Amino acid sequence: MAGTRYSLAALAQRFGLSLQGDGAIMISGIGTLAGAEAGQISFLANSRYRRQLAGSAASAVILRAQDAPASPCPCLVSRDPYSAFAKIAALFDFASLPAPGVHPSAVIADDARIDPGAHIGAHTSVGAGSVVEVGAIVGPGCVIGEDCVVGAHSELVARVTLVRRVRLGQRVRIHPGAVLGADGFGLAMDEGRWLKVPQLGGVVVGDDCEIGANTCIDRGAIEDTVLEEDVRLDNQIQIGHNVHIGAHTAMAGCAAVAGSAKIGRYCLIGGGVGIVGHIDICDKVMVTAMTLVTHSITEPGEYSSGTPLQPNREWRRSAARFRQLDEMARKMNALSKPGN
Amino acid sequence: MAGTRYSLAALAQRFGLSLQGDGAIMISGIGTLAGAEAGQISFLANSRYRRQLAGSAASAVILRAQDAPASPCPCLVSRDPYSAFAKIAALFDFASLPAPGVHPSAVIADDARIDPGAHIGAHTSVGAGSVVEVGAIVGPGCVIGEDCVVGAHSELVARVTLVRRVRLGQRVRIHPGAVLGADGFGLAMDEGRWLKVPQLGGVVVGDDCEIGANTCIDRGAIEDTVLEEDVRLDNQIQIGHNVHIGAHTAMAGCAAVAGSAKIGRYCLIGGGVGIVGHIDICDKVMVTAMTLVTHSITEPGEYSSGTPLQPNREWRRSAARFRQLDEMARKMNALSKPGN
Amino acid sequence: MAGTRYSLAALAQRFGLSLQGDGAIMISGIGTLAGAEAGQISFLANSRYRRQLAGSAASAVILRAQDAPASPCPCLVSRDPYSAFAKIAALFDFASLPAPGVHPSAVIADDARIDPGAHIGAHTSVGAGSVVEVGAIVGPGCVIGEDCVVGAHSELVARVTLVRRVRLGQRVRIHPGAVLGADGFGLAMDEGRWLKVPQLGGVVVGDDCEIGANTCIDRGAIEDTVLEEDVRLDNQIQIGHNVHIGAHTAMAGCAAVAGSAKIGRYCLIGGGVGIVGHIDICDKVMVTAMTLVTHSITEPGEYSSGTPLQPNREWRRSAARFRQLDEMARKMNALSKPGN
Repeated sequence: MAGTRYSLAALAQRFGLSLQGDGAIMISGIGTLAGAEAGQISFLANSRYRRQLAGSAASAVILRAQDAPASPCPCLVSRDPYSAFAKIAALFDFASLPAPGVHPSAVIADDARIDPGAHIGAHTSVGAGSVVEVGAIVGPGCVIGEDCVVGAHSELVARVTLVRRVRLGQRVRIHPGAVLGADGFGLAMDEGRWLKVPQLGGVVVGDDCEIGANTCIDRGAIEDTVLEEDVRLDNQIQIGHNVHIGAHTAMAGCAAVAGSAKIGRYCLIGGGVGIVGHIDICDKVMVTAMTLVTHSITEPGEYSSGTPLQPNREWRRSAARFRQLDEMARKMNALSKPGN
Repeated sequence: MAGTRYSLAALAQRFGLSLQGDGAIMISGIGTLAGAEAGQISFLANSRYRRQLAGSAASAVILRAQDAPASPCPCLVSRDPYSAFAKIAALFDFASLPAPGVHPSAVIADDARIDPGAHIGAHTSVGAGSVVEVGAIVGPGCVIGEDCVVGAHSELVARVTLVRRVRLGQRVRIHPGAVLGADGFGLAMDEGRWLKVPQLGGVVVGDDCEIGANTCIDRGAIEDTVLEEDVRLDNQIQIGHNVHIGAHTAMAGCAAVAGSAKIGRYCLIGGGVGIVGHIDICDKVMVTAMTLVTHSITEPGEYSSGTPLQPNREWRRSAARFRQLDEMARKMNALSKPGN
Repeated sequence: MAGTRYSLAALAQRFGLSLQGDGAIMISGIGTLAGAEAGQISFLANSRYRRQLAGSAASAVILRAQDAPASPCPCLVSRDPYSAFAKIAALFDFASLPAPGVHPSAVIADDARIDPGAHIGAHTSVGAGSVVEVGAIVGPGCVIGEDCVVGAHSELVARVTLVRRVRLGQRVRIHPGAVLGADGFGLAMDEGRWLKVPQLGGVVVGDDCEIGANTCIDRGAIEDTVLEEDVRLDNQIQIGHNVHIGAHTAMAGCAAVAGSAKIGRYCLIGGGVGIVGHIDICDKVMVTAMTLVTHSITEPGEYSSGTPLQPNREWRRSAARFRQLDEMARKMNALSKPGN
């Protein structure tokens, strides 16, 4: 709880870090290099910012061996200071866990099954045939529809919707406003009017996935939409029906994946990226922010589209010439011809 | 219900399709060509994928006449296999309809009018002067504000908000998290501070529209924001105040339309497309994904902006040259001059 | 209330506008120049549309002195007709304010503090340690978590979530579906799996801010995410952890700001703009729609990226040449060399 303190030596031992300096100093919280106060521990993950060490009021710093000599205070040395910081910071995360039990205002279908070790918050409803497993937390204002599973120790923070046939693995965390299992966008044009294509699949979310606020994952048309384990989705992301996302892939905010695209493992998808439907992206692909991926990618690596930022007046000139690019290229080819 | 089966001959007759092969086989579900099991019917909408027919375990396939000879199993022939599939799939969509009536946890304003044949779900509130018509379903966790109408047989799946002055036609379907009728974004700069411009219009949604999860449609500033009939909006779309969208237009996820833009009928707007305010797009315009539409479009056809996907290293070179495009063009023009 | 009428002379006096024509005519509402009916007042903010005056049925018009001679009806002259219109329109905005008090279906933590002059709507919950100040309105279906403050006279319209450690100033207005204070997207890769970085900061929102529907503002990792006073965010915006937005800045729909970016005062950020993390944008920067801001901006002015809208066939040619731009430039440079 607040007020908890750890000696630097104890932190070193607990997380297998190498201690340099006075291990007796007490740590009661975390801070940035620039903002930390006495009693707080900070971190330096990138040697480029080594200069910030000198001015820091932190009582201790987590850093790489190569940066340790520059530290004005005791330090914990790690090959991966950011991971070490994450683990130490978790000691100071005092969010209270809600007690098991169903809030009296919750509405639970007769044949839903809520484990006695699960928590169901205020104004939440759980539909027919759904299951909430042990240790799961379904916060206030959630709607769980029919035939859903919230796996053990998963958390729906608040106001999350699982529409239908959504199966969450264990330790899945879903932030407010997210909608999983809504109808995929399936339409057929039939005599001048749209005909809705039934969406009969579900959504399967693997263990340890995290899904951001107001992110949507549609359920599949015939088969399921699938997230393998440890997929991390930021806020405001749109995942179309029958998308398949490989394990350990992370996507930044506002990215969007159209129906039936398949994304590999350990991919990093930047913010606002668009991925068209029915393509296949291999493992370990990195896509920079706001790129549109229009075709399959078969080689790991970094991919981009777009144009660089310019002052508007300069950009207008570049943009006007973009329209003429083909003509320019043809002229150039004519000029380059021998004999010209 | 689950377990329902139809003979292939019965399906052919019911939907006016031509039967080839054994009409006595029984169909109990649907599947993709690759994933179907015995007893399931699949479809082939695009002859390019005809090769998939051979390996399919489906008991029957819906396809075009030209593809029928390649089918290893009985088939239903249609000029539009995808529409035919949509109609057959609907036979196997067993979502239970909630019974008419108002859930005891719902909060209904005294002068709201709920048709006895409508359903109001748990934790839903309906504000003053609002009307929910016969056969309408308002799922759990919805908020309907003042002076709204939910037309006959419309469905608000769950956690939908109609803020104020939102009138839905018949058979409108709205997915979770959607917000209709929030204030449009109207601001005037007044002596160095923003002044809010009151948003006194409403939102009018025509019959048979569908609105995706977490999509927003703001209410008009003076007059209404309007969707004509059979407009289909995917998830995470933003529609600004006083936008007008013509009948049968469909927009893919994350598209955004700024205030007072007018979009015609039968348009197809790709995912992530942006449409600036106060412009006019004619009927039958198709806009490819993540294009920015900056001016009115008066000719039907397909429109695009952006640059193609490249490996990042190559893209960096192209992008750097984009800044120099005007200079390049000037040099070239100089070189092309006679006498050079 | 509806039915309220004001003489044009009274409006002129109330808002310090100069009256031209018959001040005795009565105004009972507002309208656009094209749509106004008798009894309504309209406005002309841009002299380019002066022609619309002639055909208007409005009973009065607010306009600039230079446009007054063209008015067919009495008018109110202002240097800023749009601001004047906003103030007059507010007289005709009859949304009823909910009465103070806590709805019986609301769930309030024992140690939360709700001012007797605040309103808490149906199906809303307020968590431990949170405070709702005098005159605040928390509409139906909201979730306020732990350690939050809703400042005096602020309004959460409906279905808003404040997750944790969110402090709102006075007169803040938040539209439905917005999520403030969700975990920032902090991840460290640790032995092939993602490790969650605790998000221990909060969100601070200054006085008079407005936050659109389904917009997300994550709480900070260590320090707070901050919006200074009078910041205006449209719908579907994503603000990452530790972002800092200066006073009076406005952002249009679907813009996204990655973690730790700092945006100055009086900036105008267009719809769908992306701003990468850890950069600094100075005051009075305007960014056009769907631009990606990839580096810090130190000079006020207008900035853009992207390519212009083209018919798809022409765009395909430009896009293909974009890939060859570096090669083209090299060829050109070779041709330009003296002696070639």
